[in-house]
Amino acid sequence: MKKNPIALHKKLKGKIEIKNKIFPLRKEQIKLVYTPGVSKVSKQIEKNPKDVYELTSKGNNVAIISDGSRLLGLGDVGPEAALPVMEGKSLLYKKFGNVNAYPICLKRNLQNNLVSIIEAITPSFGAINLEDIKSPLVLEITQKLSKKTDIPIFHDDQHGTSIITLAALINALQIVKKKIKQIKVVVAGAGSAGYGIVRLLDFANCKNIIVLDSAGAIYKKRSKNMNKFKKEIAQITKNSEPLDLKNALKDADVFIGVSGIKNLLNPAYIKKMNEGPIIFALTNPYPEITPSVALKNGAKVIGTGSYEFSNPINNAVVFPYLMRALLDLKLENITLPILYSTAVAISNCVTKRDLSAGKLVPELGNTKIQKKITKGIQVNAKI
Amino acid sequence: MKKNPIALHKKLKGKIEIKNKIFPLRKEQIKLVYTPGVSKVSKQIEKNPKDVYELTSKGNNVAIISDGSRLLGLGDVGPEAALPVMEGKSLLYKKFGNVNAYPICLKRNLQNNLVSIIEAITPSFGAINLEDIKSPLVLEITQKLSKKTDIPIFHDDQHGTSIITLAALINALQIVKKKIKQIKVVVAGAGSAGYGIVRLLDFANCKNIIVLDSAGAIYKKRSKNMNKFKKEIAQITKNSEPLDLKNALKDADVFIGVSGIKNLLNPAYIKKMNEGPIIFALTNPYPEITPSVALKNGAKVIGTGSYEFSNPINNAVVFPYLMRALLDLKLENITLPILYSTAVAISNCVTKRDLSAGKLVPELGNTKIQKKITKGIQVNAKI
Repeated sequence: MKKNPIALHKKLKGKIEIKNKIFPLRKEQIKLVYTPGVSKVSKQIEKNPKDVYELTSKGNNVAIISDGSRLLGLGDVGPEAALPVMEGKSLLYKKFGNVNAYPICLKRNLQNNLVSIIEAITPSFGAINLEDIKSPLVLEITQKLSKKTDIPIFHDDQHGTSIITLAALINALQIVKKKIKQIKVVVAGAGSAGYGIVRLLDFANCKNIIVLDSAGAIYKKRSKNMNKFKKEIAQITKNSEPLDLKNALKDADVFIGVSGIKNLLNPAYIKKMNEGPIIFALTNPYPEITPSVALKNGAKVIGTGSYEFSNPINNAVVFPYLMRALLDLKLENITLPILYSTAVAISNCVTKRDLSAGKLVPELGNTKIQKKITKGIQVNAKI
Repeated sequence: MKKNPIALHKKLKGKIEIKNKIFPLRKEQIKLVYTPGVSKVSKQIEKNPKDVYELTSKGNNVAIISDGSRLLGLGDVGPEAALPVMEGKSLLYKKFGNVNAYPICLKRNLQNNLVSIIEAITPSFGAINLEDIKSPLVLEITQKLSKKTDIPIFHDDQHGTSIITLAALINALQIVKKKIKQIKVVVAGAGSAGYGIVRLLDFANCKNIIVLDSAGAIYKKRSKNMNKFKKEIAQITKNSEPLDLKNALKDADVFIGVSGIKNLLNPAYIKKMNEGPIIFALTNPYPEITPSVALKNGAKVIGTGSYEFSNPINNAVVFPYLMRALLDLKLENITLPILYSTAVAISNCVTKRDLSAGKLVPELGNTKIQKKITKGIQVNAKI
């Protein structure tokens, strides 16, 4: 296989394809699966629409939807440039969750129409995965679609990132022997990931969180650069003063970077943190700090969002499995108890013996993940 | 394989699935095809959007779009009931054209929004296939989308049906030894198929056509039940009087049924036709006349749209191959010369030796079809 991404993609011309499940496909079979036999199936579904789950692929189909307005840490690159990333997600969905995920990239600047466009395409899908759409637009869309549709609206940048971050944090705290209700967490970034992380940390009983965006720390009375989701963050975090990153990190136990900004974290700030600093520099493709630099400057635990470094803290060990569970359990809404239960399940996939500062979450393909997530949701999220 | 369509579909739970093209898919590969490697690919496409055809599946992806508002001859059954038919089409697209066709069923009653919704999802697709959407809405949509997008908008009910009908007619006329410019053709049905057939017959130099809908023959001065597409039909066909089917068929050479109405054709009417009557009863799943009845009543040539009978005249031998050609030749618009050239190519796939009243078009999977269509378009449609 070619080692250069461009050369490899050029050779493949697409990383996924459609596969037929009918062999052979001759006249005899076509009479059953196409015309005229299929009309019986259509009539049956017309009579009882829920049968679409029994007679078609709907229950295993996910639309991965992006307009490329906030792709990785690259910014607004547009829908065509988003396609290779969505194909990559589809690969992981299939390989690890046996989910059929169809990349659907939407034209730019649809804004107010996004909700109705996505709602329109729901009949053939068992779930929607929103991806790399700019915030706060995407948070708004996720809320609205969840209310309007009867299938789960999974927003990976929000939901998936919050789960993998909490899972990694639960295990990192074991290493530094701290409890979540006693720690101070600083989150750099108040987009989809920051919003999702804060809500889930709060649900997990984390009491002291400070969130910063490009205008500094978020607090209730701040007027600059606010929106309804940042107001919700201000409500949750209880911070009441303007702070820069340096001051926010004083006496902090954990830094979580979801800022989209390469090298945002000045290594000197780590020294201002409490003993045993935990650094999650999750921005892709370039983290807020290079792992070796973080370690040299006193980080006890360092993880990034990238498979380029060791200790990756990446949604890839979340979304295929969680989606499988959502589809199998026919869940209509993604709730905080579901997210929390999934984070706990993932943290439990790393055994005590295997757990270390350099290995916080299970490897891709760990065979325990699926069972633990699905069972965890059934038991703890009380469905 | 189960012989009952419902049982078979229940066992399969979907006739198509996503297949990964990357094996194995471990951390090493994920770094190349997902994060961080894929960001290089995205940046490349951002810089040069046309590279999306070289670096992703776009150039081989087709969206099969339906709202189920006019499914087969079943009427308005809705998007869920349309899904098994679209999955069936996807099977054929893959098997015969190696095209990746994604079924996307849209909610009902989107009406004016349909154009903007379909336009919105074009970035990940190399072409659109509109299917089983009610007429004249779908004709309007096809026209508008063709103008707004730079990918081909293929409307199978219109384009595909017109091609297979003309291909079959060219060969049927050889059998009865008549020329297209001398015959009288009666078309029952003025929806998508009727409209497409009339336009293509006219382009093929057929001079005497009468089209009927539920209000009888269409003519210029008719006021009842008209729309802009029926006005165009009136313009083309030159018929100037109200006629019922019985009177229209007097001295006709060919009957083409695309009415959606089972047993529409009274067998007695065949006797009113010219010598060597050609009957194409194309409505699915139930034709305008049962083949054995037509033969008993004097039909020289009888074909239906269904694989349930011999001599099927079905789009299945058109759309996978034509789409392959459209994608390979990167054509932006589907023109009458393209449709005509494709019909001629298909008619040429049946050798003189094989041609008979019971075999007008090539079998599914005939290996000559693709080359003849692609070459035909290149040579005759002057691209």
